[in-house]
Amino acid sequence: MREFREWGHKLTDWVADYLESPERYPVLPAVRPNEIVHSLPRTGPVKGESMEQIFADFEKLVLPGITHWNHPDFLAYFANTSSPPAILAEFLAAALNANGILWKTSPAVTELEVATLGWLLDWFDLPRQWFGMILDTASTATLHALAAARVAAAPETRDEGAPRNLIVYCSNQAHSSVEKGAMALGFGREQVRKIESDKAFRMRTDKLASAIALDRKHGLQPCCVVATVGTTSTTSIDPVPEIANIARREMLWLHVDAAYAGSAALVPELRWILDGADQADSFVFNPHKWLMIPVDCSLLYCARPDALRNAFSLVPEYLRTQDEGLNLMDYAIPLGRRFRALKLWFVLRYYGREGLAESIRDQVKMAAELRARIERDARFEICAPSPLSVVCFRLKGPDEPNRRLLEAVNATRRFFISHTVLNGRYVLRIAIGNAGTTRDTLDRLWRLIEELTVPSQC
Amino acid sequence: MREFREWGHKLTDWVADYLESPERYPVLPAVRPNEIVHSLPRTGPVKGESMEQIFADFEKLVLPGITHWNHPDFLAYFANTSSPPAILAEFLAAALNANGILWKTSPAVTELEVATLGWLLDWFDLPRQWFGMILDTASTATLHALAAARVAAAPETRDEGAPRNLIVYCSNQAHSSVEKGAMALGFGREQVRKIESDKAFRMRTDKLASAIALDRKHGLQPCCVVATVGTTSTTSIDPVPEIANIARREMLWLHVDAAYAGSAALVPELRWILDGADQADSFVFNPHKWLMIPVDCSLLYCARPDALRNAFSLVPEYLRTQDEGLNLMDYAIPLGRRFRALKLWFVLRYYGREGLAESIRDQVKMAAELRARIERDARFEICAPSPLSVVCFRLKGPDEPNRRLLEAVNATRRFFISHTVLNGRYVLRIAIGNAGTTRDTLDRLWRLIEELTVPSQC
Repeated sequence: MREFREWGHKLTDWVADYLESPERYPVLPAVRPNEIVHSLPRTGPVKGESMEQIFADFEKLVLPGITHWNHPDFLAYFANTSSPPAILAEFLAAALNANGILWKTSPAVTELEVATLGWLLDWFDLPRQWFGMILDTASTATLHALAAARVAAAPETRDEGAPRNLIVYCSNQAHSSVEKGAMALGFGREQVRKIESDKAFRMRTDKLASAIALDRKHGLQPCCVVATVGTTSTTSIDPVPEIANIARREMLWLHVDAAYAGSAALVPELRWILDGADQADSFVFNPHKWLMIPVDCSLLYCARPDALRNAFSLVPEYLRTQDEGLNLMDYAIPLGRRFRALKLWFVLRYYGREGLAESIRDQVKMAAELRARIERDARFEICAPSPLSVVCFRLKGPDEPNRRLLEAVNATRRFFISHTVLNGRYVLRIAIGNAGTTRDTLDRLWRLIEELTVPSQC
Repeated sequence: MREFREWGHKLTDWVADYLESPERYPVLPAVRPNEIVHSLPRTGPVKGESMEQIFADFEKLVLPGITHWNHPDFLAYFANTSSPPAILAEFLAAALNANGILWKTSPAVTELEVATLGWLLDWFDLPRQWFGMILDTASTATLHALAAARVAAAPETRDEGAPRNLIVYCSNQAHSSVEKGAMALGFGREQVRKIESDKAFRMRTDKLASAIALDRKHGLQPCCVVATVGTTSTTSIDPVPEIANIARREMLWLHVDAAYAGSAALVPELRWILDGADQADSFVFNPHKWLMIPVDCSLLYCARPDALRNAFSLVPEYLRTQDEGLNLMDYAIPLGRRFRALKLWFVLRYYGREGLAESIRDQVKMAAELRARIERDARFEICAPSPLSVVCFRLKGPDEPNRRLLEAVNATRRFFISHTVLNGRYVLRIAIGNAGTTRDTLDRLWRLIEELTVPSQC
């Protein structure tokens, strides 16, 4: 244990230095595919090695191959933050190694999950009675929601297998996990309807209604509609209240995917993004996206937990219990349950509702400022509304210079931005979400983009 | 960052003390359901709180509700270990927050996964060309395997949806995750055949062959057979070579579930448990069970990765890449991929093959010694062979005294043992798997059982 103590102290200082001066590292690595694999021995060591050797190789071989998600200059996908209290909580959780398979296999794991997920419902002003649990990612959560929707519509699925006429609806801007979930579960991709969206990339509810009517006419069974609050490409927000009306009228399961944007509802003036979400049958949001929590931590809430149970509960003899505790394994695919609630509890307490809201509010403001700056430059066009912390823009004209611009920015390795395609055109995205990102970061980025743009346009 | 530094050092010492003297904590908590939830505020704090307050509450409210999986006196389910190098790796991984969605989103995440999973194939003497990836738990891995088996048998599943005539086979001792996976994916429970096992709780291959023949006669399509190496109740080992022969002859997907026992194949004289496993189409084993790794870390290997891709690959525009890197999201439900390979790499190097094998070898020996001791006591009967580190036994006679004995042992909170049911009878299980468990631990446990047995039999 002397060695653990020594290395715990060393790594504490290393991590503190890392968090303190991220600029020591380029945000993007310079490695080529398989370079790291080839730099490592082809076989593992027969005899044990010292922490000294292992950590030296970590710094020499692994670190240069890391894309630094926890870096202020990471502005791709949905940028996010692993905060100091969350890092400390993960350290403790790894030491305890508590596993919340059942309530009794570590009561605090389940109960801290219940408590913190309840706090968030309260903060979000969503129905406090909702059932909630932590899963790894929103893709997994959405697959769980679709399985619950299916067994709710066709209870025979559990014993007889899935019917082949159940239809899932989402917008053409919905995350790929909806289609992937439907495909993996055996709905079939042909049973997923991607409803047209409007000019602001929000689902068109008239098109949703007519698609449902057409499917009914063809003898198919509409099963589930997924509304997105904060789509991946543009952060557009589907008209959840109208979708909820249709879902109620048509007896469809309503799943609300607020994986990225959900956190923003902590900001009072942004709470509107969750209008209508209280009507959801299931709801997913990822604290590991915009709530200072490192990956993985995705929350699945459900107004009809019995459906989740019907989709997933099977209790083997060795896990039968007599107590009244909540056994979360009855509601999910995995039995094993890491103590992820600990980092959530540390973070919610450390920052408090106002601290978390303030950080998100400021990031949304920074995105608006960046957008205004881009709008002032006649070479560029803004490609979508930016209600939250992502700005979509492009150089006017053909796609190719935009592709080259993205590559040039990322080739500096000083910034990482990403792209999407909107209305068939290649679009650049700047996503603000790391707690260390400042106005200076964005200023440096924009000056780089200006620099890279001038010559490439000559 | 001053605060992080301060608390990192404090928690390092706290964790070192925790690991050094686990006997300060009873292995089982004394809390009742909802007690922890009720001890916490009903709403989260508006303003942030200090680490001082949070950690004080951790010690006061959370710790008393922890079942200490990382305690030498934890002998339930499959006991396991969170080792010092793994804890340090989790600390680093949380700080980096690297996410291996794609190769390029953090090349080292994917490549360390490729490298370490390759090392293990080499150590296990399994086909080095197998594809491998880390998932959270074996339940998730088995669900992935079943989805791949389905799409391999019925490629139309991807677009049209799942056929309803595909049959999955496993023994009646297989883990519940096989049935759960089949149920969740929409095979339907009725399509799962639980094949009878022999007196040593191994699948009877004659019964498997006749079940397949009967299903074919009824026009059903045998799809997949799951062989278990180390069942959950008794650690029995299915005759994989014969099952593999049947699978090959009948063109079934062979999934080998070695979640617990796989690690033991590192011990040369125990390598036989994986005989025939090289014939598998997919193979799962959990380093978080018996390889010094904290939850979660389950490895899914696959000889036919194209089937996994067909089951799960869908690439949205924003994740399209030009590079040649391996994108693990194409093979799995989750897109997000925590840097779990880091703890695996730290542990494989720190202990080395011989260090890990030595620990397992000794635990298997301790189980044999315990078994011999139980055999010498005429009041007890051994209920199953114990080829590995789990001993199944009971008081001769009716179930009730056995139930009471289990409750009495666990009520001391000094030990945690669990139960199963074999041939309709209630059976106690002692599972050795924590690296801190010694002969003295088992001696103390057995003396307690003797003490508790005498009066209850009077």
